[in-house]
Amino acid sequence: MPRKIEVCLSPALIDLYAIENSIVVVIDILRATSSIVYGIDNGAKAIIPVAQVEDCLAYADQGYLLAAERNGEVVEGYDFGNSPFSYTKEKVGGKTVVLTTTNGTKALHLARQRASQVVIGSFLNLQSLGNWLKTQEKDVLLLCAGWKDQPNLEDTIFAGAVVMELRSQFTEFDDGAVAAEDLYSLAKDDLRAYVGKSSHSKRMMALDIEEDIKFCLQLNICQAIPVLEGDQLVALHTGL
Amino acid sequence: MPRKIEVCLSPALIDLYAIENSIVVVIDILRATSSIVYGIDNGAKAIIPVAQVEDCLAYADQGYLLAAERNGEVVEGYDFGNSPFSYTKEKVGGKTVVLTTTNGTKALHLARQRASQVVIGSFLNLQSLGNWLKTQEKDVLLLCAGWKDQPNLEDTIFAGAVVMELRSQFTEFDDGAVAAEDLYSLAKDDLRAYVGKSSHSKRMMALDIEEDIKFCLQLNICQAIPVLEGDQLVALHTGL
Repeated sequence: MPRKIEVCLSPALIDLYAIENSIVVVIDILRATSSIVYGIDNGAKAIIPVAQVEDCLAYADQGYLLAAERNGEVVEGYDFGNSPFSYTKEKVGGKTVVLTTTNGTKALHLARQRASQVVIGSFLNLQSLGNWLKTQEKDVLLLCAGWKDQPNLEDTIFAGAVVMELRSQFTEFDDGAVAAEDLYSLAKDDLRAYVGKSSHSKRMMALDIEEDIKFCLQLNICQAIPVLEGDQLVALHTGL
Repeated sequence: MPRKIEVCLSPALIDLYAIENSIVVVIDILRATSSIVYGIDNGAKAIIPVAQVEDCLAYADQGYLLAAERNGEVVEGYDFGNSPFSYTKEKVGGKTVVLTTTNGTKALHLARQRASQVVIGSFLNLQSLGNWLKTQEKDVLLLCAGWKDQPNLEDTIFAGAVVMELRSQFTEFDDGAVAAEDLYSLAKDDLRAYVGKSSHSKRMMALDIEEDIKFCLQLNICQAIPVLEGDQLVALHTGL
């Protein structure tokens, strides 16, 4: 069967892609989707992505953890933001987290409106995500969250890593997929140095989150693939 | 003075960029901006970009040449489309051409609404464009026309070629500029082979325009820099 893999470099371009029969992988490496993968891998019961900071408040009385990040910082009054170090076993095991972020949750909400299935990708679960996608009889759209609708390097190179992983199983690649894979081939021997070329990374460094960045660029330390079921991200049962 | 160079990978993202004080370079390598550069270099008096095929007709009685391309082909009943071989001295010297294309003229119309100045780039005039941009005290946005709002390889690598040309004179580069320059560094030793990886190029090959593609990937065979003055593209007087 011919299978297509495409890379959408910005959520603002999602309407250009026919995704009704596709699996959409949402990508926001620094840091939302890395933290989501890590949290689900650490036994979080569910993570509920919401679009607005105020939307979190609707869940305030239900015993959920509330996580809100805007412009890279924890919103005042919230339990935490999107640093992966907030998503440890101790903090999120058995719990439900309600999360809003600047870019990642927006991309998720756009994807869920039309996609056949929505899953979460990060370097942390690259291999297990790749293995599972290979077994599915579906086209794949890799949706980069970017930074306020502008494409960014870290999401693009991760998309490229997935393309490289899947190349042998797919027959069609759009220009975004070709570009992303080529950029990943340049970046892969030193992801941290490559991401250091990014303006977003400079913004991040100003926030003093070097440890977060290093954490999010680790390969394959998680097995979990978060999948959207209804309005919740939960662990996908892959049967692999 | 700090100077910024940014790459907008799709016309659909132009609203994300502050260009009121910037020079915008419109890029549609296959084939609109290559043909515009070649035509102006060959002495065309002016090229008038219009958005719709029907808009060309308004100029029908004024002795202008009418050029219309849609989905890569000449629209029936028009003098020609956007093949560079239609823009020779013999055909366009001293003449005014009214042109509409699938992607390039749309990008031009979006740019002119806000930019300080709009010029036309292609591999054909890379060097002369670069030399002139270096002398201007302005930020630069490289606007890729893409294919129906999706980013494409050939426009992206040309943007990267301009970034490489200007790097020493600029201080700030967005992620689009970094990515484009890296892709150009991969592509530059064999542009034709690199563009062959593109889905758009496969579409082009189906149109049997291999000679056009090779022509458009030649470096520095033209000196002219077309600039938008009012609603017309004319030769820029650079004083260089």
